[in-house]
Amino acid sequence: MKTLNYLLGYDNIKIYQDSEWFKFSLDSILLPNFVRIKPTVRTILDIGTGNAVIPIILSTKTSAKITAVEIQKDVFDLAKDSLNINNLNNNIDLINMDIKDFSKNQESDIYDVITCNPPYFKISDTSYMNEDVHKQIARHEIMLTLEDLMMVGKKLLKNGGSIYLVHRPERLLEITEAMRKNNIEPKRIKFVYPSKEKDSNIILIEGIKNGSIGLKIENPLYVYDDEKNYTKEIMNYFN
Amino acid sequence: MKTLNYLLGYDNIKIYQDSEWFKFSLDSILLPNFVRIKPTVRTILDIGTGNAVIPIILSTKTSAKITAVEIQKDVFDLAKDSLNINNLNNNIDLINMDIKDFSKNQESDIYDVITCNPPYFKISDTSYMNEDVHKQIARHEIMLTLEDLMMVGKKLLKNGGSIYLVHRPERLLEITEAMRKNNIEPKRIKFVYPSKEKDSNIILIEGIKNGSIGLKIENPLYVYDDEKNYTKEIMNYFN
Repeated sequence: MKTLNYLLGYDNIKIYQDSEWFKFSLDSILLPNFVRIKPTVRTILDIGTGNAVIPIILSTKTSAKITAVEIQKDVFDLAKDSLNINNLNNNIDLINMDIKDFSKNQESDIYDVITCNPPYFKISDTSYMNEDVHKQIARHEIMLTLEDLMMVGKKLLKNGGSIYLVHRPERLLEITEAMRKNNIEPKRIKFVYPSKEKDSNIILIEGIKNGSIGLKIENPLYVYDDEKNYTKEIMNYFN
Repeated sequence: MKTLNYLLGYDNIKIYQDSEWFKFSLDSILLPNFVRIKPTVRTILDIGTGNAVIPIILSTKTSAKITAVEIQKDVFDLAKDSLNINNLNNNIDLINMDIKDFSKNQESDIYDVITCNPPYFKISDTSYMNEDVHKQIARHEIMLTLEDLMMVGKKLLKNGGSIYLVHRPERLLEITEAMRKNNIEPKRIKFVYPSKEKDSNIILIEGIKNGSIGLKIENPLYVYDDEKNYTKEIMNYFN
């Protein structure tokens, strides 16, 4: 069922969602808030944009040209509706395409920033496999693997440009290895923890194309405080 | 100058140190407290033991046989004095040898646990290079690289045995890559932060020989609280 919701904390932004498919999650809020937008950033690419929450939040922070690519036609249609209702069609260029094909058709070295909230699970990891094909593609590496993603990054990022991912800690080493194989150096990681005593369940990572070696582990981010309310840091992300 | 100090928090343990060389640091306290000592652990090896703080703390937690190897003769002599004064010569077997030679002379697959607080800096990183040769060897990868260390781990660890390191976050990916090259799978990491707002400056990492893929990022550890006192967690390590 198609529904229209306000994006939490953004009074003037509404997002279309389909309750049968998937809703935007905290992950999609965390990632654009982890991105460092330098004044020199002119071009941004969001890969697998889903309901376009990431480019929509980025558009509140920068006037850079944002391209957002989504492979699934009906998900793309819904995202298009969200851009229309928020008058964001001029800021965000939404494209219905497989990112691998999109990348082939592009020149090299054209983006300052790439963002992606990719599928978290390997195809072989069927523990979370859902019957709905939209969820399958969003969650499992059916259409896009980490290796695919970093090959796209290697081609499309400018020299010194950054790729930002939100992902699961279990897969950290696969991410960093796929980055390094494609001349993208992991430079900055923030681990997100549900609360103080728990293991991390989300990572935010920045890699720089042809960057020098040297990794920074930023101070941790907790989602909930001891009273099980959102922490101040998370509330800040909700404007 | 040779001095004798109580090990903070351990009323009955004294450690000899030479103020000209180096003193045991927080790192050497953190590592043995990160080690999981299962009841099945029979044999432990501490590599580059220095003033033997790590095996001494471990000896308070387990009756496993501990072997501690130190390459520098005069550092070894001082550690020997510490074992004597604490009556730990039966629990800890102290050996004055290069760990690479030690490893060659040993059979394979004999240790349940290996611990190491290795040199943190590459030889090429001269920014912290100190004139004192004892400090140079302890801090810089002159006698022992990460690759050497993991080759020793690969040979000497039992199948399913664990190697534990304390190190710097900047070098995380070199550590995990050296581990994987030697069939040691990184399984568990704890990032240590000086305080809440700071980047991590210490990592604790466990790798398992022939372990399955899948990394856990444990809840973070802060050294100082908002009032610049040691946190409760750190105080617990001081008994």
